[in-house]
Amino acid sequence: MATMRFRDPAGSIRTGTPTDDGVEFGDESYALDEVDVLAPCDPSKIVCIGLNYADHAEEEGMDLPDRPLLFLKPPNAVSGHGDTVTLPEGKEKVEHEAELAVVIGEQCRNVAADDAMDVVAGFTCADDVSNRDDQRVEQNWVRGKAFDNACPLGPVLADPEDVPDDASVELRLNGETVQSSSRAEFVFSVPELIEEITQYMTLEAGDVIITGTPAGVGELEDGDEVEVEVEGVGTLEHTVAR
Amino acid sequence: MATMRFRDPAGSIRTGTPTDDGVEFGDESYALDEVDVLAPCDPSKIVCIGLNYADHAEEEGMDLPDRPLLFLKPPNAVSGHGDTVTLPEGKEKVEHEAELAVVIGEQCRNVAADDAMDVVAGFTCADDVSNRDDQRVEQNWVRGKAFDNACPLGPVLADPEDVPDDASVELRLNGETVQSSSRAEFVFSVPELIEEITQYMTLEAGDVIITGTPAGVGELEDGDEVEVEVEGVGTLEHTVAR
Repeated sequence: MATMRFRDPAGSIRTGTPTDDGVEFGDESYALDEVDVLAPCDPSKIVCIGLNYADHAEEEGMDLPDRPLLFLKPPNAVSGHGDTVTLPEGKEKVEHEAELAVVIGEQCRNVAADDAMDVVAGFTCADDVSNRDDQRVEQNWVRGKAFDNACPLGPVLADPEDVPDDASVELRLNGETVQSSSRAEFVFSVPELIEEITQYMTLEAGDVIITGTPAGVGELEDGDEVEVEVEGVGTLEHTVAR
Repeated sequence: MATMRFRDPAGSIRTGTPTDDGVEFGDESYALDEVDVLAPCDPSKIVCIGLNYADHAEEEGMDLPDRPLLFLKPPNAVSGHGDTVTLPEGKEKVEHEAELAVVIGEQCRNVAADDAMDVVAGFTCADDVSNRDDQRVEQNWVRGKAFDNACPLGPVLADPEDVPDDASVELRLNGETVQSSSRAEFVFSVPELIEEITQYMTLEAGDVIITGTPAGVGELEDGDEVEVEVEGVGTLEHTVAR
């Protein structure tokens, strides 16, 4: 069953049950416009995967990696459903990247791929907002990927069983579909990613893995409305400001 | 005045005052062997600087950068004074890097260099433990730098006023001095680093900036004893296991 993390009218942070038009917690029901929807978890780190779809690697002119390309976003990058992403100042080319996000459910290390789904709390949607001006010229993608609000997450944490192996991953920019692919196109599967990452580092409950983006990335401008939809999860919406 | 973070005999985490041979908190005095010394802060991220000493850039065969080279270590990398750093499994070349570490004292963004020391809580010592096998072949230094216990920090948080502008930065490996330089050799100063980083991201209280290493990096092996000494801070000690 899916969960939604939100700030209630009293300002308390709750994890409730999403309904057709709102969210429930205890005996209370709220309409979505009564609450602030928050990112569905509070990660200590976001481990990000580059070039995990062949068509995106091709559009970037990159070879497919022989093991997952890893990079990091720290907690300052987290943003949520319904929030405004402010683009880093003075940068020309800042792009959207629709992604399926994996939320970890327990502290873990050295997890074999066969056991990896046991440590997954659920799936959500992400936009891996990317500042290409700096990404193109820096060794580590810190200015390019780790700036404030560079990782909207949401709207809910979905049960992995509700997200099919070939779940669609789509992004609509101002209502027009510009990215459209499927989890079936991943170069490295979710269990393979968890095995690889946990050979090097402990993942904590609430940590996030974002699994790479398909072809169709494009520039964001002031006033843009972005929707990232993952089949079985729902639709993450955010706006953009300069 | 310096502070030391430790776990007391009851298991409680305290921030006390270091003495010549122990630490005090409230009315209690403890010998160092009665407590577990912890890293002096609990960072949400460690922002790391590469190539900030000309002599180290030369030994690595790299040009000096025209702006700070940034990379990230997440919280799983934190280790403390007196701890054992276990090297990542199966890696041949894992090296020490002595560094001065800056601990941030308040949440901040867009800090001008002239005001940057106002957001600094203090300085400590760091070892930027680096897995060269992977660092040499990956775009982002995640396997190379972000593995568990890749960042011992400590032993205390020192007042910046006690750390001279030309403070020595040294590393002794099994008692022999192998790195020896000074903060005066930095390519980018602490205030310049804070200005640059906070153009892109919010720093939180407890976040850490490690400021790069001088020449003399070298390989770590099972059983090694490492001491990182920064003038005005003290000496961080850790051991190494494979």
